[in-house]
Amino acid sequence: MTPKGFLFSTAEAAIKYPGRKDLALIYSNNEAVIAAAFTTNKVKAAPVKLDIKKAASGKGQAIIVNSGNANACTGKQGLKDASLTADMVASELRINPELVYVCSTGVIGTPMPMERIRTRIPELIDNLGISSMKDVARAIMTTDTFPKIVHKKVKVGSRTGCVAGICKGAGMICPNMATMLCFILTDIAVEHKTLGRILVEAVRQSFNRITVDGDMSTNDTVIVMANGTTGNRPITGKSEAYQQFRKSVHDITYELSKMIVKDGEGASKLIAIEVKGARNEKDAGTAAFAVANSNLVKTAVYGNDPNWGRILAALGYSGATVKEENIDVFFGKLKVVNRGVTTGSDEEAAGIMKEKELKITINLNLGKASFNVLTCDLTEEYVKENATYKT
Amino acid sequence: MTPKGFLFSTAEAAIKYPGRKDLALIYSNNEAVIAAAFTTNKVKAAPVKLDIKKAASGKGQAIIVNSGNANACTGKQGLKDASLTADMVASELRINPELVYVCSTGVIGTPMPMERIRTRIPELIDNLGISSMKDVARAIMTTDTFPKIVHKKVKVGSRTGCVAGICKGAGMICPNMATMLCFILTDIAVEHKTLGRILVEAVRQSFNRITVDGDMSTNDTVIVMANGTTGNRPITGKSEAYQQFRKSVHDITYELSKMIVKDGEGASKLIAIEVKGARNEKDAGTAAFAVANSNLVKTAVYGNDPNWGRILAALGYSGATVKEENIDVFFGKLKVVNRGVTTGSDEEAAGIMKEKELKITINLNLGKASFNVLTCDLTEEYVKENATYKT
Repeated sequence: MTPKGFLFSTAEAAIKYPGRKDLALIYSNNEAVIAAAFTTNKVKAAPVKLDIKKAASGKGQAIIVNSGNANACTGKQGLKDASLTADMVASELRINPELVYVCSTGVIGTPMPMERIRTRIPELIDNLGISSMKDVARAIMTTDTFPKIVHKKVKVGSRTGCVAGICKGAGMICPNMATMLCFILTDIAVEHKTLGRILVEAVRQSFNRITVDGDMSTNDTVIVMANGTTGNRPITGKSEAYQQFRKSVHDITYELSKMIVKDGEGASKLIAIEVKGARNEKDAGTAAFAVANSNLVKTAVYGNDPNWGRILAALGYSGATVKEENIDVFFGKLKVVNRGVTTGSDEEAAGIMKEKELKITINLNLGKASFNVLTCDLTEEYVKENATYKT
Repeated sequence: MTPKGFLFSTAEAAIKYPGRKDLALIYSNNEAVIAAAFTTNKVKAAPVKLDIKKAASGKGQAIIVNSGNANACTGKQGLKDASLTADMVASELRINPELVYVCSTGVIGTPMPMERIRTRIPELIDNLGISSMKDVARAIMTTDTFPKIVHKKVKVGSRTGCVAGICKGAGMICPNMATMLCFILTDIAVEHKTLGRILVEAVRQSFNRITVDGDMSTNDTVIVMANGTTGNRPITGKSEAYQQFRKSVHDITYELSKMIVKDGEGASKLIAIEVKGARNEKDAGTAAFAVANSNLVKTAVYGNDPNWGRILAALGYSGATVKEENIDVFFGKLKVVNRGVTTGSDEEAAGIMKEKELKITINLNLGKASFNVLTCDLTEEYVKENATYKT
């Protein structure tokens, strides 16, 4: 199921190496309402700088995206290259260049192979409609092991629309966002401000609550395009369909972010961390991320080792207010730490850890705030992948 | 060369497993002046809580230290056990229990095997003088691969004294300090406040500027004992020998901290990171630690991959003020990034990375502040060691 009024194509541009589709185009038949969220890293890739400016208009019609090269740390030439890419696509499509967004992911610091991209653009446009949204999801993969796509139906009055999202993730995943590109497309008409508000909230509840390795990328981008092909009256905060539409975007970003963590570089397990009983949400988040980013916790989970002491150590240095003698820790439903000391159930805990998904619940017993973070374990495979990613 | 007036012994208490010396005693023939620094982790091990109280007196005569069990997250029983250990040693030595410090390192959350420790204490005291300071350094190793010891001669007037330090490190090494125990002994008399000030400064310049995995331990302790056997007039800030003594403590802590990083769990390379040209020292430190703790930077160094883009990404998310277009990066003396863009010398850089020590210099070109951090690479071996440390 794909939102109506969008066309897709992919091409081989041999950006990093030949033999794979590494260039994709997303095109809406008409000018769409767009909202976007970008990395908060101070070092931003050229296409991110470009798109931030374009997104201010709230309008868009096409997204050209490549894997293999991030076009980050490429100076003025990088900015020229990103602009030129948008211009070339716009010229072929005969639309305003301001409506064309550019997204890149891959190696940092290497100039874009512009000639190879240029020669593929006519083909991309000629082939629009031949590829599926899933083909685009596949073309934007870097170290991902599977394409990530989620879609939802939404009833708007008598009509039925569709919201679909794709993303790529894998490494360098940390709030806010990740080496993460996400495109959400819908044929439902949505008023611009409403769309922006929904996106910001959804990102905060999903992509900003996952971490693979604590590294935040220069290229993170989430773009949502609503082209209104369904023909409904644009959704606002007062529309009957508002809640259902909002929920579909939240569900899509949450499910995609979960997929990203499951597919974390070298990951063998998904770890869901919930900190509750914190004095306030900031503390809960700080504590949850300290545990989620601890290499010692992540390797212990990998090794099925109920080494909860590392969790307490991470809570202790997190900066959040904690009292050792108040802390409870659960693995699944099993209490392993009661008020700061062992419950003597490590053997049973080791059994629970053998599952592919581990829920760690931490109750600080100091207040009522809570925070959830998804992460994955740290394995030899992560080291192997990242020791030789570039070369 | 060992400071005069100190005796050492070691014993096998099978704390984690049998067949190794895991208990050690350091004893000064007379009451010594002591100063100490402890972990800033809010979750502190029982012996740390105990020693913090004792150190307020500025006096000490013995340190009993064990590996294999950290006596952390062990609740009230843990505190009782730590106190009892000090009491038992004091009773056998016939000294005031307030003069006996207890240090532990090893697994968190497991009760101390007190019976096995108790039965070894008479032997420890009987054997005082049989072991060397290096034997103690060996007994406190956990995942360390070599004992760490440094000594310096210091001239005080017509006399010559000695300062010697031992430590254990390996994993969970991050400021402030680490799973790190360090004992510095000297036969030179030093006034208490002067000793305290020198220690704080030395720790700030050494142990607080190293990181292995970003995890900070619950047990970090540095104790310096000055027993005055040399017979000099106690050194104060005004003494002629002050600078030389101060330098010897700084050199010892710096050399020991470098050994800790070299011996980081699974480490194959030492990485020295210098950030200069920062607006202020806080920014320089924040930036340096973000690079030093980045798993992506550490794996790239392991793989001899000059992926400097990961360095720029880490600087960008560090929170420090940076301007991409101002940043220079050097590997050794080779400039790899000039004003935010590549110098095209990646191939040469890859060659430099094959050395066992890599110096990464980052000039933010925004001000005059600088900061140095030592770290190591991240390898499959780190993951292996930490996935199965407890079980």
